[in-house]
Amino acid sequence: MFVLMDLVLDDRYFMQRALQEAEAAYEKDEVPVGAVVVVRDRIIARAHNLTEQLRDVTAHAEMQAITAASNYLGGKYLTDCTLYVTLEPCQMCAGALYWSQLSRIVYAASDPQRGFSAMGGRLHPKTALTAGVMEAEASEMLKRFFIRKRNLN
Amino acid sequence: MFVLMDLVLDDRYFMQRALQEAEAAYEKDEVPVGAVVVVRDRIIARAHNLTEQLRDVTAHAEMQAITAASNYLGGKYLTDCTLYVTLEPCQMCAGALYWSQLSRIVYAASDPQRGFSAMGGRLHPKTALTAGVMEAEASEMLKRFFIRKRNLN
Repeated sequence: MFVLMDLVLDDRYFMQRALQEAEAAYEKDEVPVGAVVVVRDRIIARAHNLTEQLRDVTAHAEMQAITAASNYLGGKYLTDCTLYVTLEPCQMCAGALYWSQLSRIVYAASDPQRGFSAMGGRLHPKTALTAGVMEAEASEMLKRFFIRKRNLN
Repeated sequence: MFVLMDLVLDDRYFMQRALQEAEAAYEKDEVPVGAVVVVRDRIIARAHNLTEQLRDVTAHAEMQAITAASNYLGGKYLTDCTLYVTLEPCQMCAGALYWSQLSRIVYAASDPQRGFSAMGGRLHPKTALTAGVMEAEASEMLKRFFIRKRNLN
């Protein structure tokens, strides 16, 4: 029981870091999604969505986090890594995570429209998945962003 | 009939350019996949697979071609573009192409193992798809690559 509690606290700790990245995206008027990659309780990569600033649909938080983690590790496989991301990965990001053979994905809010599960995407069979960690916080930030967008337009 | 012949020649012309990119990958000991992005009969981006050299699973030919084309056009949507790629896009690349709202994809060889259609991926409803242009040439290069790899190991 104690171990389980401890794990849950850890996931919240790292998701809080991913939410800080999402907040950085929000401040740049980007859809607020953030991600961190963790190896043995150390953050080795952090990123947030930059699709507007870079004018590049591939600049999702997860994609940049995968590239940064691979650079840090000096290898393209992320077999001992956990990705924390504030929104369910899309088909593109799920595909990149598949190739990386990442050991675990933890996401906060679901994306019933464009999430990989709705789009028919697939994760690597070796990748464990945990959903819903700090979902309320991540959803609130996304809702706040889209309400602001609507009011500005 | 003349128009049809003309279209087919154009597709072969641009696929030949994509095959030259694949050959450049082959020479770097990368899985030989190449891509070009075309707008109104002009190539605005060309790229080949660099996953080994960059140690980055996201460095597929299509991903780099999308980023390069977006840079060239100064916008993230590729609505008037055609992508020529020598191998059927994977789930990740199909996802990126989905976001880009590309008008057309032409690929050469199918990928029954990791192609987006086998993996359950989805293209944008506005994206037209043509498969099998110069399939034999692309397949031959891929086979040659994997035979060489086997013989070296």
